[in-house]
Amino acid sequence: MRLTRRYRFSASHRLHSHALSDEENRRIYGKCNYPFGHGHDYVLEVSVTGPLDAATGRIVDLDTLDGLVAREIVTPLDHKNLSLEVGAFRETVPTTENLVAEIRRRLDAAWSGAFGVAGPSLERIRVEETKRNYIELA
Amino acid sequence: MRLTRRYRFSASHRLHSHALSDEENRRIYGKCNYPFGHGHDYVLEVSVTGPLDAATGRIVDLDTLDGLVAREIVTPLDHKNLSLEVGAFRETVPTTENLVAEIRRRLDAAWSGAFGVAGPSLERIRVEETKRNYIELA
Amino acid sequence: MRLTRRYRFSASHRLHSHALSDEENRRIYGKCNYPFGHGHDYVLEVSVTGPLDAATGRIVDLDTLDGLVAREIVTPLDHKNLSLEVGAFRETVPTTENLVAEIRRRLDAAWSGAFGVAGPSLERIRVEETKRNYIELA
Amino acid sequence: MRLTRRYRFSASHRLHSHALSDEENRRIYGKCNYPFGHGHDYVLEVSVTGPLDAATGRIVDLDTLDGLVAREIVTPLDHKNLSLEVGAFRETVPTTENLVAEIRRRLDAAWSGAFGVAGPSLERIRVEETKRNYIELA
Amino acid sequence: MRLTRRYRFSASHRLHSHALSDEENRRIYGKCNYPFGHGHDYVLEVSVTGPLDAATGRIVDLDTLDGLVAREIVTPLDHKNLSLEVGAFRETVPTTENLVAEIRRRLDAAWSGAFGVAGPSLERIRVEETKRNYIELA
Amino acid sequence: MRLTRRYRFSASHRLHSHALSDEENRRIYGKCNYPFGHGHDYVLEVSVTGPLDAATGRIVDLDTLDGLVAREIVTPLDHKNLSLEVGAFRETVPTTENLVAEIRRRLDAAWSGAFGVAGPSLERIRVEETKRNYIELA
Repeated sequence: MRLTRRYRFSASHRLHSHALSDEENRRIYGKCNYPFGHGHDYVLEVSVTGPLDAATGRIVDLDTLDGLVAREIVTPLDHKNLSLEVGAFRETVPTTENLVAEIRRRLDAAWSGAFGVAGPSLERIRVEETKRNYIELA
Repeated sequence: MRLTRRYRFSASHRLHSHALSDEENRRIYGKCNYPFGHGHDYVLEVSVTGPLDAATGRIVDLDTLDGLVAREIVTPLDHKNLSLEVGAFRETVPTTENLVAEIRRRLDAAWSGAFGVAGPSLERIRVEETKRNYIELA
Repeated sequence: MRLTRRYRFSASHRLHSHALSDEENRRIYGKCNYPFGHGHDYVLEVSVTGPLDAATGRIVDLDTLDGLVAREIVTPLDHKNLSLEVGAFRETVPTTENLVAEIRRRLDAAWSGAFGVAGPSLERIRVEETKRNYIELA
Repeated sequence: MRLTRRYRFSASHRLHSHALSDEENRRIYGKCNYPFGHGHDYVLEVSVTGPLDAATGRIVDLDTLDGLVAREIVTPLDHKNLSLEVGAFRETVPTTENLVAEIRRRLDAAWSGAFGVAGPSLERIRVEETKRNYIELA
Repeated sequence: MRLTRRYRFSASHRLHSHALSDEENRRIYGKCNYPFGHGHDYVLEVSVTGPLDAATGRIVDLDTLDGLVAREIVTPLDHKNLSLEVGAFRETVPTTENLVAEIRRRLDAAWSGAFGVAGPSLERIRVEETKRNYIELA
Repeated sequence: MRLTRRYRFSASHRLHSHALSDEENRRIYGKCNYPFGHGHDYVLEVSVTGPLDAATGRIVDLDTLDGLVAREIVTPLDHKNLSLEVGAFRETVPTTENLVAEIRRRLDAAWSGAFGVAGPSLERIRVEETKRNYIELA
């Protein structure tokens, strides 16, 4: 059994890779390479698996999950400029792919502290950047 | 190949577990433990796999599927109070997790009667309780 | 210029009018008359008009609006049974029409206390009960 | 008869008014005042009225409308930083209210050039900033 | 107070006006002029105003409204080819504008027969052809 | 890591199988068997997996993907009558199941030409016919 919970945050970014020339950056990222950045309303889905607790009828305590996601993801990223304010994207281009990987790293690092070692498992992260695009990381 | 079909029903419930103290019920379920209940517009997805019938171009007969889901799920649950009117939730708290398990049990029990033993397989159930939450059971 | 802001709350109710016979109640409300009630995820839109404040670029202070709607509408109605717990619906059937009228009365009564007499105007209330139905009151 | 057509663009901005103190900016705009900006996926609706052309069955030529909106609005604003790159927001805070007013000014100025003096009328602009908020200007 | 109810139907059509040359048809309708037709999932909104009935808490009887719309609109148009099967579009090009006008004519003609002369009023029709386009007729 | 991208196209079709009698066609396909056809606004999701390119932060070049899908799927199917104009459906009934299989065949055939043999993999196709139905092919 798998529970998925949705969160939202709005952020800005500029797609520009230090590993590419200016010309390559323009060709690969198009409008997303415009110098002053742009932004999106991201939708984050966090999917959790685990045994069903017979007493509560739940596979995960939602307050704990919401607190963890607020502390590790939404508060540090919401209404921020990913390119300028988030350390992980100082050297790394903030594509949705890299954003998903960063969110996964943050949740993995804090997971057992929040839920204990016998708790539910983080199974999948999904980020929808716009209505046209989403990235999943299992 | 997998076909998924969506159904909707509206129901009310109160989350209150007999296995927990009143204090624990309030802490774990929050507003969902309010004594007089509340309700949701549930979205049920039923996913079916099976070989493609060369003559019909279908993997499942939709009339049979719709009839089964109407009879077993939508008619008995739509516009009902899950906590007070549905036997499965007399002892069990009607969280979305337990609701999904109950829907799965009902469909499993009636499946081969509707489709025969050589018919398509019920692969996954998904219930969305609100825009923030959904549960899947494969 | 008109600003509209959306709020959500979940509630249960039973449509049963004291002014009608049991037979009429069943005929007019159908499944909504089932005795133990059912529920919905309501979407409330509040539309406000007013002059544009040159300094803030806003026609209404959103914190004040959110505080007012939370205090008068969302907190008293969310996760409640409208038929059993909300005084306005003791004698009056909680159709979406009557719910919209009640929300309008509550906001009208508290509006000038929140915004002052020279503040923005409450122009329209809209409540979506399900994807099939909404009611507006200008 | 009224036709409404939807367009999308993504942009970033920072809400900070030169007419307010830093302390007032923080209080009024909250997270939207964070120094490095954030972004949204805006949805623009343009509503047009006019007589029905008996030959074409249309009240407006969609190619002309799409070309006008692309040239005046989507190309200049999409993937841009409204605060830093759009002249209208050098002195004016880019709230959705001011953004709607600016879009209206741009379309009004170019309208008769695109459609001629006997053409359809621009009746309403609507901009949805997030799922929680939209502004209309008739 | 205004109630709006949503209905859905799927239909095909080809936009080709007898009043225009082939060349003009291609220029004005683009892909919609392709010779074999294409289709859409239309969303119809019907908005009704009227006094609130104190006994029922309703401004319109929903069964009567649903029956009227089914009989006059959904049954005759759903899964049909508007260009080939609907008389109104034999001479008239089935743009959304003309479709809305036809739906309005049909509902106006049958309205007082369904609701009586003292019944609620049909205030507005809205048809959404795709996510990019809708037409309203008040 | 998996990227999913959404595309839209509108098309018409008639469900009528040459392998079935007229009577069986009517029973199995219902309204979808009406002789003149009907249509839908299809939503196509294409899911791609592959290693994350460290320089670009992407698992697939979006311009290449968009070009491939436009050339192989959207241009040949958009605003077409699947039953009459698409060779694959001359003998085969254009159910969503068969449409998904055909889209998969076209993308598979052109994939390595577009991305090279070391490129990302096409993992899944999903087509949503209406809000009630979707088909996936992994």
